[in-house]
Amino acid sequence: METENTIRRLKTVEGHLRGVIRMVEEDTYCIDVIRQIQAIEAALNKVSSQILEGHLNSCVTTAIQGNDKKERERVLKEITEVFEMSTKV
Amino acid sequence: METENTIRRLKTVEGHLRGVIRMVEEDTYCIDVIRQIQAIEAALNKVSSQILEGHLNSCVTTAIQGNDKKERERVLKEITEVFEMSTKV
Amino acid sequence: METENTIRRLKTVEGHLRGVIRMVEEDTYCIDVIRQIQAIEAALNKVSSQILEGHLNSCVTTAIQGNDKKERERVLKEITEVFEMSTKV
Amino acid sequence: METENTIRRLKTVEGHLRGVIRMVEEDTYCIDVIRQIQAIEAALNKVSSQILEGHLNSCVTTAIQGNDKKERERVLKEITEVFEMSTKV
Repeated sequence: METENTIRRLKTVEGHLRGVIRMVEEDTYCIDVIRQIQAIEAALNKVSSQILEGHLNSCVTTAIQGNDKKERERVLKEITEVFEMSTKV
Repeated sequence: METENTIRRLKTVEGHLRGVIRMVEEDTYCIDVIRQIQAIEAALNKVSSQILEGHLNSCVTTAIQGNDKKERERVLKEITEVFEMSTKV
Repeated sequence: METENTIRRLKTVEGHLRGVIRMVEEDTYCIDVIRQIQAIEAALNKVSSQILEGHLNSCVTTAIQGNDKKERERVLKEITEVFEMSTKV
Repeated sequence: METENTIRRLKTVEGHLRGVIRMVEEDTYCIDVIRQIQAIEAALNKVSSQILEGHLNSCVTTAIQGNDKKERERVLKEITEVFEMSTKV
């Protein structure tokens, strides 16, 4: 169900993106195009946050409660990595 | 030609996004999905920068060299606005 | 006067940053420290936007209304560059 | 030791920020000031990532391995929140 929600949101973004392509084809005012691209990015950020939330409550929790130290370190390292990347895009 | 370049880039992003939707449908590891979404956002940032560059060299230059003070103020205010928004998405 | 406003804002950020250093020294809860650092970044973004606004209304306007093509190109290129960087920090 | 490292990094940022204030006082070219502010933000992002890394390996791990469900949910919710905020600043 969470997956369906993610797919639905990403398909909405896809529709939004196709709309932006049409705007460029129709020679819409540049600033309006940039604003729509920024709206798409905000929507994508929201999707990423929701995926991360699901991930923390499933895989990460399982790994940390498990006995595999390497696996625990791996899942936590990934969280730091996507956090750091999120400050760059 | 610049417009065609923008459309081509946005269509590449659209293909990338469809790939991400497929990844979610096929239950790909969450972190890999998040990383792909971040790659899409980086690509969209690049497109926005290029659109802005074109805008500065056309509309903004024309407006600033023109005699309409209101219009000059308007185009410059928009630049500040999209800059400020870019720090938020 | 605009310069004074910028200096005042940056000094407020400096005070905020010193507060964060104190928080770390006093072993404040990590998440609260991260939130304060994010608040500082939001404040810095605001300062950057205001500096850019002033720059557009002074140097950029003068350059674009001037006769030096190289200079016009230079100031516009810089705007695109700081815009692009703003999507990365 | 990790705390000392964080403090040292934040004090470096403080020195950088004081340098930027001086630049504004001395009427340095706007774009150079904006670039230095962006460099400060990149440094702050790095500090946040490191604090988050430490937090994941201590508090978060302890909470998830513990028996308090509310506490587990709380620490995970906070991670999602700072991640989401990181996409906005």
